[in-house]
Amino acid sequence: MNTKLPVLRHTVELRHAVQQWRRQGQKIALVPTMGGLHDGHLSLVRLAKQHANRVIVSVFVNPTQFAPHEDFDAYPRNEERDWHKLGTVEADAMYAPDVHEIYPRDFATRVDVAGVAQPLEGISRPHFFSGVATVVTKLFLQALPDVAVFGEKDYQQLLVVKKLVRDLNFPVTIVPGPIMREPDGLAMSSRNVYLDAQDRVTAPHLYGVLQDMAGDLAAGREMDETVKKGLARLEKHGFRVDYLEVRDAENLTPAVYPLWKPVRLLAAAYLGKVRLIDNMAVPSPGAH
Amino acid sequence: MNTKLPVLRHTVELRHAVQQWRRQGQKIALVPTMGGLHDGHLSLVRLAKQHANRVIVSVFVNPTQFAPHEDFDAYPRNEERDWHKLGTVEADAMYAPDVHEIYPRDFATRVDVAGVAQPLEGISRPHFFSGVATVVTKLFLQALPDVAVFGEKDYQQLLVVKKLVRDLNFPVTIVPGPIMREPDGLAMSSRNVYLDAQDRVTAPHLYGVLQDMAGDLAAGREMDETVKKGLARLEKHGFRVDYLEVRDAENLTPAVYPLWKPVRLLAAAYLGKVRLIDNMAVPSPGAH
Repeated sequence: MNTKLPVLRHTVELRHAVQQWRRQGQKIALVPTMGGLHDGHLSLVRLAKQHANRVIVSVFVNPTQFAPHEDFDAYPRNEERDWHKLGTVEADAMYAPDVHEIYPRDFATRVDVAGVAQPLEGISRPHFFSGVATVVTKLFLQALPDVAVFGEKDYQQLLVVKKLVRDLNFPVTIVPGPIMREPDGLAMSSRNVYLDAQDRVTAPHLYGVLQDMAGDLAAGREMDETVKKGLARLEKHGFRVDYLEVRDAENLTPAVYPLWKPVRLLAAAYLGKVRLIDNMAVPSPGAH
Repeated sequence: MNTKLPVLRHTVELRHAVQQWRRQGQKIALVPTMGGLHDGHLSLVRLAKQHANRVIVSVFVNPTQFAPHEDFDAYPRNEERDWHKLGTVEADAMYAPDVHEIYPRDFATRVDVAGVAQPLEGISRPHFFSGVATVVTKLFLQALPDVAVFGEKDYQQLLVVKKLVRDLNFPVTIVPGPIMREPDGLAMSSRNVYLDAQDRVTAPHLYGVLQDMAGDLAAGREMDETVKKGLARLEKHGFRVDYLEVRDAENLTPAVYPLWKPVRLLAAAYLGKVRLIDNMAVPSPGAH
């Protein structure tokens, strides 16, 4: 490793760095990640640099947002690779704490967001957003950033974090980063490495179907019919669909047809054992 | 009202005041209260002034820590009286937000501390500490104080707040304030005004019993026997005892006899409809 990008292991080091920057009048951004960095993450770092003078990227695979049957142990970890990638986008610090630094032995506190955290991923993964809200609370209180960047790839997570910030009065501005996609349309994700060659070819159809559905809805096509058609196409391609829904873009309540508020398409579907998620804004009907 | 002590109603005003003070290099303390201020509260403000240059006292009767059958509506409120009292101890600001400022219509987030929040008050008042942890989180994030003062009168609450701060990494130092008592020993409490003349005469026996128990335990007397005797005395005086226990002073797990770690006596008991709580450190056996 070269010595350019400092790696911070402890909260005290992180706070020390932040305090020094703040004393110099610098604005500070945090980009929370679970490592396995790809170009999607790097786009978030670049976005963070537009909103702040200093960018801290946290790399922490948070155990409390995985269920026992999920892929916590198998989750892709390669810290050195992550560190090199962060060097290329000129992050200012990588915060990579040990699990015991975040969750000491007698850790006993939990943060829960109701409402927007309950449908969709909240049903498929009941402990997920409580794990997210708790670790984000800790990271925010450790780093005290002015700005934090979250990708729209995890759209519901982005809304949960926004709600958390509003409800608990965090003095942090949340900046959403657009989804980055492979040339064939597949949303970038650390979990894409799990896809076998066959499924990797199929995977971009998730994007294709969402795109066509968004077009149909924007053209005024009936909602339930559009969803039914999308579902059939995904199943024909071999996806096992967890959900495919049209939701209010702000609070994720079910969309009401005819659409008159901004809505978002959200999908989760399995190819083999790999669970893919994706989402897309629907242009307002009449906007084209 | 005179114009000396500013009353802040909104989070933005609070943050503005704190920012200005911080820019001047001042250290800031928060003393969270539910109003109904008495000399016990004022002692906390004086203590806060020893730890900081500026002291903010919040006055907010937090609805989420009352159960439906509890005394939220009847809880003593007299803001002008509180304001005058705070003037006498030279607090720097009174933060008295409206309930909608703290809990907007769609508020949906909750902070829970397990472990130390579960026994004693946690059993009698199942929603109490979740309400406390959530509102304290919000007040800390609104004011971002360096120091916060909590009275030992609510000893379990003090431990819950300390745990909250450690678990979520709040950059706040918690300073405990000793219990203030009336000349006859009754612990000062906003709820003492509910006691009728007869019960007011009986109430100090709670203190007397705790004092004798602490003396007996410090003298090496057997624990269960000591508790049984204390219980009998309280009942003879007409108390309906909710709990009377000897607990580990740090984490409130049941004390183990013979006592070898610091322990605390904790009690909750009704006189008529009024629920009194009190607690006391037990001097270590052999310390006298």
